[in-house]
Amino acid sequence: MTQLDAVLAHADAQLDQSLARLFELIRIPSISTEPEYAADCRRAAVWLRDQLAELDFDASVRDTAGHPMVVGHGPAQPGPHVLFYGHYDVQPVDPIALWKTPPFEPSLAPQPDGETYILGRGASDDKGQLLTFIEACRAWKAVTGSLPIRVSMLFEGEEEAGSPSLGPFLEANAEDLKADTILVCDTDMWDRETPAITTMWRGFVSEEFEITTADRDLHSGMFGSAARNATQLLGTIIGKLRAEDGSVAIPGFYDGVEELSEANRREWERLPFDPVKFLGDVGLSIPAGEAGRSVLEQVWARPTAEVHGVWGGYAGDGFKTVIPAKAGAKISFRLVAGQDPHRIRQLFRSFVESLIPGDCSVTFKSYAAAAARSMPLDGALLTKAREALTAEWNRETALAGTGGSIPILGEFKQRLGMDSLLIGFARFDNRIHSPNEKYDLSSFSKGIRSWIRILDAFSET
Amino acid sequence: MTQLDAVLAHADAQLDQSLARLFELIRIPSISTEPEYAADCRRAAVWLRDQLAELDFDASVRDTAGHPMVVGHGPAQPGPHVLFYGHYDVQPVDPIALWKTPPFEPSLAPQPDGETYILGRGASDDKGQLLTFIEACRAWKAVTGSLPIRVSMLFEGEEEAGSPSLGPFLEANAEDLKADTILVCDTDMWDRETPAITTMWRGFVSEEFEITTADRDLHSGMFGSAARNATQLLGTIIGKLRAEDGSVAIPGFYDGVEELSEANRREWERLPFDPVKFLGDVGLSIPAGEAGRSVLEQVWARPTAEVHGVWGGYAGDGFKTVIPAKAGAKISFRLVAGQDPHRIRQLFRSFVESLIPGDCSVTFKSYAAAAARSMPLDGALLTKAREALTAEWNRETALAGTGGSIPILGEFKQRLGMDSLLIGFARFDNRIHSPNEKYDLSSFSKGIRSWIRILDAFSET
Repeated sequence: MTQLDAVLAHADAQLDQSLARLFELIRIPSISTEPEYAADCRRAAVWLRDQLAELDFDASVRDTAGHPMVVGHGPAQPGPHVLFYGHYDVQPVDPIALWKTPPFEPSLAPQPDGETYILGRGASDDKGQLLTFIEACRAWKAVTGSLPIRVSMLFEGEEEAGSPSLGPFLEANAEDLKADTILVCDTDMWDRETPAITTMWRGFVSEEFEITTADRDLHSGMFGSAARNATQLLGTIIGKLRAEDGSVAIPGFYDGVEELSEANRREWERLPFDPVKFLGDVGLSIPAGEAGRSVLEQVWARPTAEVHGVWGGYAGDGFKTVIPAKAGAKISFRLVAGQDPHRIRQLFRSFVESLIPGDCSVTFKSYAAAAARSMPLDGALLTKAREALTAEWNRETALAGTGGSIPILGEFKQRLGMDSLLIGFARFDNRIHSPNEKYDLSSFSKGIRSWIRILDAFSET
Repeated sequence: MTQLDAVLAHADAQLDQSLARLFELIRIPSISTEPEYAADCRRAAVWLRDQLAELDFDASVRDTAGHPMVVGHGPAQPGPHVLFYGHYDVQPVDPIALWKTPPFEPSLAPQPDGETYILGRGASDDKGQLLTFIEACRAWKAVTGSLPIRVSMLFEGEEEAGSPSLGPFLEANAEDLKADTILVCDTDMWDRETPAITTMWRGFVSEEFEITTADRDLHSGMFGSAARNATQLLGTIIGKLRAEDGSVAIPGFYDGVEELSEANRREWERLPFDPVKFLGDVGLSIPAGEAGRSVLEQVWARPTAEVHGVWGGYAGDGFKTVIPAKAGAKISFRLVAGQDPHRIRQLFRSFVESLIPGDCSVTFKSYAAAAARSMPLDGALLTKAREALTAEWNRETALAGTGGSIPILGEFKQRLGMDSLLIGFARFDNRIHSPNEKYDLSSFSKGIRSWIRILDAFSET
């Protein structure tokens, strides 16, 4: 039995214990965007620090202006030095009524196809995923007494809130965090059987705005038609955000947008992707994005505007005939190469302002901003990782894009000059950010095994 | 001193006691549209029954499928028999944070101009207004031992919820409720000094709809642009509801709409009305209704569509990048003569359905429907009432329209064949349906005096 085989066998034998640790972490309701969960976020950070300490890492919880960071450094080793990044915070759980099991009481749910779901908020995003890496390191240490290469880890607690503290933290700790590459486990596999390395992702800009029309709510019997209605004005603005053909209708929005490279297009054309199934799996059948673009292009390589929430007026039981004086929305843009997030924010604000009548007003609130990025496809570590994944899953590893945004990687590139390898084991149907989030037990166990192999492969470079 | 003068003097002397009774009634939080206040609605009904019993009325609380009715009949008298109608229910109080005093703890607030505000939810709509009539009757009884004409009263508790039980109740009690005319005190004066009789009001149709796009909330990083967004679709629909020129853009909406009669136009042109002040008083300056129509026409004689509330997605603190799968709105239409409310409801539903993509769905919920109406301007009782009002206020009584809807009057006309006299003492700035609702003490005291005079005038017909 090779050393690698011994480590893999140990991980398999210890799976129940690994799962118990994942359950412990899921039980901590570390919702970063809701202030009442701040203490839970800190509890999750402390829990991770303790895990790293068990690996003989020099680990600490580091305060920030927001939720704390966890930084840990393993002992020096020859070969490349990797920095693994993950986030311990999770999305809010509403609408809570749609959860079939309590979001922070993890459980296993065997499925008819032989898979088992790990249920709970964060089971996939990102608690299950980040633990695949920690558990891989734990197996190496248990069997060989050390890790095969030098490993550092960084966990943040604000990823779901746009990582406001990360840039300053990287800036202030640049020397401490420098490594050869970043490893991230926050992405999907290509399909249930096919591993993937994600090499392209979209940028992101998020804004909240609130309109004020009259100086109070009015009665529609008294003012109806003559007085501007804030909810109606909100609808007008949202209605004009995208054109009939699915494109974003903000003037200047597409300036500088880069078309997909031929190399990437060829790579993607090889991928088995069924747009009918992609939409059908969530109950849809008609692509809502730009006409004339494939669904894969729409979600990976084209920018979009999405409304995440609206409010205004009376939404309770019964009926109230007010003309609401205030209404608002949360909106974000997914961006692609060639779009500057700060310019897009300004274009959006100008667009909204141009639709506000002279006797009304609007206020804006900024959340995150991050540029789109894509990684070189031919690096040495990427090649090693691809081989290791292919060995574990017995399928050629896909080089894919994602429609999501991973702002931290822009920060790492900008502040520390480091590129990233995005390897994740989540599956398409994990319902991340939605009720009934799950992580497949096979994602968890084979994810651990994949990282064990990748660490081994890296030690040979 | 004439008998009339004696009754007026008595009412003036008893004003503090009248006010104490109004405070008692305001303290009962009889919000009809929120189920948790059902017991309070009943308490208000019982309170009113007890008031009528003190006037020697044969009064009772009558159960309905919703909140109860109160019916009371005074002793037989010569002359016309009037049925006074009022409603004891009030609007919800949200946004509660904007109230400067608790909505159900009434208080007096002296103003710099010498007026005193009676503060509280329902102080004006309709508790303060309906009590002007009861207190007028009380004064007549105290001074003369009886009322000058035969009076019956009917109070309902669902006016703010669209009066669902009223039609069936009128139908079932048609004989019991028959009188020569209806008196209603739920309208405004023309201005602070000028009394008004309202002879035209708009109809009303209210609908709630909810859109479903995907079968769950989605993550905008995964599906953004390709998956239909319910909040965005809601915005598209609301945005198309009214055209750039302020008109309602639903096909067929204006079919049959009657232009304002020349008689009414002449009457209204005599009224001192300042559209700049009308909008300026609520912080607006640009009329939002149909271009080319005066503001008075927009609010009294033209139909409109108003959005009263929207919901969908995440509206809490922070940010959540969901693509919401559900979004909805409450919408109503104010109608004018020539529009059938049921046809308008169907046109609206067809309009919404035409904007729902084939893979999405919409459900509707109906609330109230009532046709627009206008009263003959030359009846004997109207003429008597106009003279009495002019005597009390020392100003010519305006014959006005209102943009509001009083569905009950359609019910009375349709089920019992009775016309109505709308005489109210509310003022334009009473903030009904809004935070910090008030009724002027002078509205209350001179309202009582006005009804004392009207009852006297009617007894002479």
